[in-house]
Order: sequence, then structure tokens, then C-alpha cells
Amino acid sequence: MSQFDNVSVIKKSNIYFDGKCVSHSVLFADGTRKTVGVIFPSTLVFNTGAPEIMEVIAGKCRVKLAGQDNWQEYGAGQSFEVAGNSSFTIETIDTLDYVCHFA
Amino acid sequence: MSQFDNVSVIKKSNIYFDGKCVSHSVLFADGTRKTVGVIFPSTLVFNTGAPEIMEVIAGKCRVKLAGQDNWQEYGAGQSFEVAGNSSFTIETIDTLDYVCHFA
Repeated sequence: MSQFDNVSVIKKSNIYFDGKCVSHSVLFADGTRKTVGVIFPSTLVFNTGAPEIMEVIAGKCRVKLAGQDNWQEYGAGQSFEVAGNSSFTIETIDTLDYVCHFA
Repeated sequence: MSQFDNVSVIKKSNIYFDGKCVSHSVLFADGTRKTVGVIFPSTLVFNTGAPEIMEVIAGKCRVKLAGQDNWQEYGAGQSFEVAGNSSFTIETIDTLDYVCHFA
């Protein structure tokens, strides 16, 4: 599924890390929220509040979750889960299109 | 109105000018399309196919339409029209959140 249907979209973006990450918030009828976004080539550390699932739509990255020593590579169609109140380091190799699902 | 309701959102972004412009497409029930996007500080020339209205949600820019000599400044809540098969030069002074309405 290449699109979300029957949703609301916030017009103003969320910009992080001096523009290395840009996203727009998408609101669902059931009250949940996701973001659709882009991460440009970089190595960034993201902190989580709520648990989240990062779904890669396009591009390529390597990810190291907090407390782990190994990097895992993810590409289009793959996703990874991050615990709440945690963090992950993401090295974006090819510009990433992603959907972030919040629990 | 800070959001669009009852719309579809394409998950994959549109990236232009090496990431200086990032947008996501929003589809409406009546078949029309808009984009919600960001332009980072830069001076860019955009070519239009269909006529469009650029609505500034946040940030500040100066715009010169094709065939005109004068620059006009636009900020939050303002918008400008661009003819089809034309172009405009946009100098983004403060990072721009915009909605592009296609006719």
C-alpha cells in the first residue's frame, strides 16, 4: 500500500537535526498518529518517547539500537521496532523515505 | 486550518534540488492534488506545468515570477499564484513550510 487513506495531514512539517530529517504528521480516525518523512544521508541518534516502528519505504540505512553492539541494515519494505524511552543510532546510506508508527 | 481532513497521503516523498525541497503529495476526494512541503534556505528556480498557488504556512521567502523584474516577499498566511508552463525564482530566507495547490 503506497498511501494512507481517510486521514488528516498536518500542514506544518517537523524538522530535526538541522533539516537532515523532515516529516509530516498523519492523523487516523482511531486517534493514532504516524509520520511520513525523509532522512538525508547522515548518522543521527534519535530518542524515543513512545515505542515506535520505523518502516522503510525507500532508501537504505544501518541501525544500532540502544544497548546493542551490532548494526542491522534495512531497505525498502523492512522495518524495525524501538522501545519507548530508548534511542537508536541510524546511519542513512541512501536517502530514506520512512513511515514512523507510534504505539 | 492547520490540517487537511479526509485525504490520502502518499508515503514516498518528492525530493527536488538535492534535498533543498521535500514534499509529500495529498490527494482529495474530488480528484485534486496538493503537496505539503519544506524548502530550506536557498535560491531555486521552479518550473510549473499546471498553474499553481503556493501558500506559505511558516517561514519567509522572496519570489520573482517569470517575466517580472520585481521581487515580492511572502510570509506565513500569504500566497502567490504562478501561471502554467511558467517558472518562478524563490529565495527562501527562513525555512519554508508550504502547501502547493494545483489548479
